[in-house]
Amino acid sequence: MSRIRVDMTMSLDGYVTGPADGPDAPLGTGGFRLFNWLDKRNDPGPSGEVFAEAMATRALISGRRTYELAGHWGGDHHNGVPILVLTREVPDEAPPGTVRFVTDVAECAALARAAVGDGVAMVHGAGAAQALLRAGEVDELDLHVVPVLLGRGRRLFDHLTAEQVEHVELQLIRQVRTREVDDPGQHVLHLRYKTMPG
Amino acid sequence: MSRIRVDMTMSLDGYVTGPADGPDAPLGTGGFRLFNWLDKRNDPGPSGEVFAEAMATRALISGRRTYELAGHWGGDHHNGVPILVLTREVPDEAPPGTVRFVTDVAECAALARAAVGDGVAMVHGAGAAQALLRAGEVDELDLHVVPVLLGRGRRLFDHLTAEQVEHVELQLIRQVRTREVDDPGQHVLHLRYKTMPG
Repeated sequence: MSRIRVDMTMSLDGYVTGPADGPDAPLGTGGFRLFNWLDKRNDPGPSGEVFAEAMATRALISGRRTYELAGHWGGDHHNGVPILVLTREVPDEAPPGTVRFVTDVAECAALARAAVGDGVAMVHGAGAAQALLRAGEVDELDLHVVPVLLGRGRRLFDHLTAEQVEHVELQLIRQVRTREVDDPGQHVLHLRYKTMPG
Repeated sequence: MSRIRVDMTMSLDGYVTGPADGPDAPLGTGGFRLFNWLDKRNDPGPSGEVFAEAMATRALISGRRTYELAGHWGGDHHNGVPILVLTREVPDEAPPGTVRFVTDVAECAALARAAVGDGVAMVHGAGAAQALLRAGEVDELDLHVVPVLLGRGRRLFDHLTAEQVEHVELQLIRQVRTREVDDPGQHVLHLRYKTMPG
């Protein structure tokens, strides 16, 4: 059975970017701190294993904002898997690589599920994650919780006032953390939750 | 050395109450879900151990709102330890039991540290936690993360825009979760962080 898995790095206080994010500072002030753990993404150990799983997903769903800030990933996020970009307005120019623009959340989820078969579609971007949560289309959440308080910025869990997410039960199915390493910047707690049938 | 430890239960999306909290619904709509894990507070196991540690703290700092909603704990939260209530306005009536009202955050922290010696003062309430974080007076955070999304409510991490908390480094010093139990309502992940010298 297909699974749609939100995959996001956030601070302990729930931010996925620092304040004042934009084209010149995609992660906002101080936000790069969140991605230090990815320095270890190709090493053995928990962070390497978690990253390898992300790279084994068979489709990517991204918000338009994340897509733009990431420079469209050159049209190939990893292994040429389909990239579905949720957007309000489809741009005129042809999308690069495997990118397809989708305006409807349900259609986006259906396309992703069809693309991955019994595999996993990964979701990047707070906007896309929120849209899919509101639509009840999220099966799993991979949260990489970085031990820092940013105080301000863009929250992962926000704008979730629709009925569907006013009370979503989850089950923690994995918790792994980096081993003690000299650089506190590498510390991260990887949590995986699955959503329970409502 | 004394430690000031925030001790709060929150949903995975960071809420410590559901929406519309008030005297008639202290935890807001759906918020009682957060405290199901306390059903196991006197049992052996992770939740029992964590709760016993909280009850071994030597002082309590509480926000005024929490204090009022909790019915003042009858003037004794546990073991007759000092209760310091942070408030903007000291009420006219004499406080019950070991309660003392304090209007200044730094004074509150100093009183708590003096009271606990080399022990721990526990902080209850998002407002008090935020005030102490802004003042740089939090040494540890015990977060009991309940696997539920509430979508709305009162956030633990909010109103933290002061310089002091725009980038606070933490270290995860404990993570324990409840063993698999039949009732998903008992599931909780207990995290303890300590703040790193800035």
